Amino acid sequence: MTTADTPLLLAPTWIAPVAPANGVLTDHAIVIRGSRIEALAPLSVARNNYPGSSELALPGHLITPGLINLHTHAAMSLLRGVGDDLPLTRWLEEKIWPAEARLAGADFVADGALLAAHEMLRGGVTTFNDMYFFPEATASAARTLGIRAALGIIVIGFPTAYASSAGEYLRKGLELRDACAGDPLLSFCLAPHAPYTVDDDTLRRVAVLADELDLPVHIHIHETAGEIDRSLSQHGVRPLARLDRAGLVTPHLIGVHAVHLDDDEIGLLASRGAAVAHCPHSNLKLASGIAPIARLLDAGVTVGIGTDGSASNNRLDLLAEARTATLLAKGASGRADIWPAAAVLRSLTLDAARALGLDRCIGSIEPGKQADLVAFDLDASELQPVFDPLTQLIYSAGREHVAEVWVDGQHVVKMRQLGSTDAARTLREVVARIPVWQNRVVSA
Amino acid sequence: MTTADTPLLLAPTWIAPVAPANGVLTDHAIVIRGSRIEALAPLSVARNNYPGSSELALPGHLITPGLINLHTHAAMSLLRGVGDDLPLTRWLEEKIWPAEARLAGADFVADGALLAAHEMLRGGVTTFNDMYFFPEATASAARTLGIRAALGIIVIGFPTAYASSAGEYLRKGLELRDACAGDPLLSFCLAPHAPYTVDDDTLRRVAVLADELDLPVHIHIHETAGEIDRSLSQHGVRPLARLDRAGLVTPHLIGVHAVHLDDDEIGLLASRGAAVAHCPHSNLKLASGIAPIARLLDAGVTVGIGTDGSASNNRLDLLAEARTATLLAKGASGRADIWPAAAVLRSLTLDAARALGLDRCIGSIEPGKQADLVAFDLDASELQPVFDPLTQLIYSAGREHVAEVWVDGQHVVKMRQLGSTDAARTLREVVARIPVWQNRVVSA
Repeated sequence: MTTADTPLLLAPTWIAPVAPANGVLTDHAIVIRGSRIEALAPLSVARNNYPGSSELALPGHLITPGLINLHTHAAMSLLRGVGDDLPLTRWLEEKIWPAEARLAGADFVADGALLAAHEMLRGGVTTFNDMYFFPEATASAARTLGIRAALGIIVIGFPTAYASSAGEYLRKGLELRDACAGDPLLSFCLAPHAPYTVDDDTLRRVAVLADELDLPVHIHIHETAGEIDRSLSQHGVRPLARLDRAGLVTPHLIGVHAVHLDDDEIGLLASRGAAVAHCPHSNLKLASGIAPIARLLDAGVTVGIGTDGSASNNRLDLLAEARTATLLAKGASGRADIWPAAAVLRSLTLDAARALGLDRCIGSIEPGKQADLVAFDLDASELQPVFDPLTQLIYSAGREHVAEVWVDGQHVVKMRQLGSTDAARTLREVVARIPVWQNRVVSA
Repeated sequence: MTTADTPLLLAPTWIAPVAPANGVLTDHAIVIRGSRIEALAPLSVARNNYPGSSELALPGHLITPGLINLHTHAAMSLLRGVGDDLPLTRWLEEKIWPAEARLAGADFVADGALLAAHEMLRGGVTTFNDMYFFPEATASAARTLGIRAALGIIVIGFPTAYASSAGEYLRKGLELRDACAGDPLLSFCLAPHAPYTVDDDTLRRVAVLADELDLPVHIHIHETAGEIDRSLSQHGVRPLARLDRAGLVTPHLIGVHAVHLDDDEIGLLASRGAAVAHCPHSNLKLASGIAPIARLLDAGVTVGIGTDGSASNNRLDLLAEARTATLLAKGASGRADIWPAAAVLRSLTLDAARALGLDRCIGSIEPGKQADLVAFDLDASELQPVFDPLTQLIYSAGREHVAEVWVDGQHVVKMRQLGSTDAARTLREVVARIPVWQNRVVSA
């Protein structure tokens, strides 16, 4: 009889554990008990050691750690396609900000985040690092779908429907963090929006909180050349120097975009152990530029990958993002061997987990870690032949090949569909409301 | 009763005809009779005018002209993933050329091309422009699956299992062209491999044939900086100047890659009415560079998009290629509004058809043209909401949303699967042989 304590033995053709060794195992099994990975062992050993386990054979499948989307604004999926093909300033000022000002309340965030969480889960994302208003609504969507979320304690220098001052933004976010303590799926980052929307005093307060509470700091930096010019004229220094002055360039820092960096700034990020969340589709689509990924990797900076929100991408498709990321790094640097597939997989998993302070819990397939896993079906004819399952994953496979997903030991995607009937029902209810949101965007 | 002559009335939510107007129609229907588009009309008008037609309602679907892959080496799908993450020279010299020398016979081409044709059809590609040895085997694969192919009359300056001299290459290709005369799915291009593999005399012969037979000339040009340097030292001119000297820079020219072009060269291509086949994933993966697409478009050069072969991409996924193409053009030029979605769709269809000399037959949804059509299911929750079906197609949709495909009036993909049981059986036979090919690649 199968109970909650019965171990589940997963037997795919290939396993990419990422750590301690970043390679591919065959004839091995992963044993899940409850929410955790209990063992990773040769199949025959696993069968001997766990005789009462249920076994799921996955021929032709590759299991990796769950993918981590290191930067998104999940709720913006309801604004997907608003203002495409516009320059950044017109896109923000004519389309996105007015729509957000009219619509972005807790109900908008709840529906948008649920759609986003569904899209991400079915694409193999098991954790997303979010920055948006009303994070309590995003938390609720994540719980409903069973996806892990690192929620941003957002602070921005102007009032919104969510909060009216830096103090209120921080207080609300910290209260949510307290209320969610002990929730296995939720963690938190401090999320000052950007150097150009947050004042020095608030940046210093964020630095103190990051230090005292041991929280990552999730912030947009150096996305466009224009914001650097404005910082120089307004503050006399480039934005990263302002963050450094405030005490924010530390191992807690997750700098999003980081498109425009000089060598000293790359050296600073590396020496302080800061991480970068690279969002190539968004940077290209908004014509922000091409991040200096080869130089960041050469310097030893931890690089994760993010989709950004649906309004600037427009797919929350982390595997496609990763493929573009490494291709673009090769093309822009002239080095075809930079960021090879195994390193890209580590960026998508363990490196992103480290940036989020979660690498003791997730990011690799090691005994004792939480069971966040993705099974990719590499048996499809368009993925044949498989000379190397890792390069096949990064260069050939797509989210359409994600077959099974586990988060915290729960089998949340089964044969490409949501595993929970409750989650599926909630999704249908949200989908039914989309035309209402769409009308409100268009008619406003 | 439905017969071959019964008109088929397609009634999707949206139709993007590309020409004469490049917009989106709603409440319209496409009427197919036999292999042709008989009408495009308001739904009520179509129903009145074709009372005996069978009707296929496609709610939530967008129908576009079939996509045209303007550059591939279909047979190379059997080498997908060989030599990933290697620099171009090592990739070619250590991996690809040795494997081709050992394996590339007619049976290899037949199986590889069939796998490629299946991948392309299911991704919405209805025509592919191919360059490879043993084009008769590629022709056979295209016929089996019912996909349209522009076959390359390849010529390359060294002997292979296919032919041993320029004369033999050309003779074999031209004989195949004669043998295929009247086949509705097949057309031909002259396909001298590249300036660095074809001598001046052969280039001049190709120019004469192109002129006399009114055939496009499909050739790699200016893919890498190195080939330009070598041309300067060996011939005293850049490769495009050599082509021009041979009389090849004309409206017949389809220059593949065109990564490294100066302003004069862009002006030359524009003034002569030549076309470029842009292959961004291949250019990035092999670190060849980033083609100057914004400048080419500004100059009025016809730009189509190609996947290149599976060994350098590794997906024959033209929609993903198009998305990267426009995103990269925006990011590299700093102009977020360049190559908007409607223009990208025209590049994928009518512009590519024009480059192939097929724009009187395909490339738009107009009465009298052949019925090459794709229906994309935009109803998926990850594509909601749909503010603009064209931007949703280019920026959000993927090949996983291709639901139905018609080529030459045949319904070749039905509900995401091959429509022909014979084609499906042949595909299964080829898939069963993949491990044999894989062993021959690895063990050699």
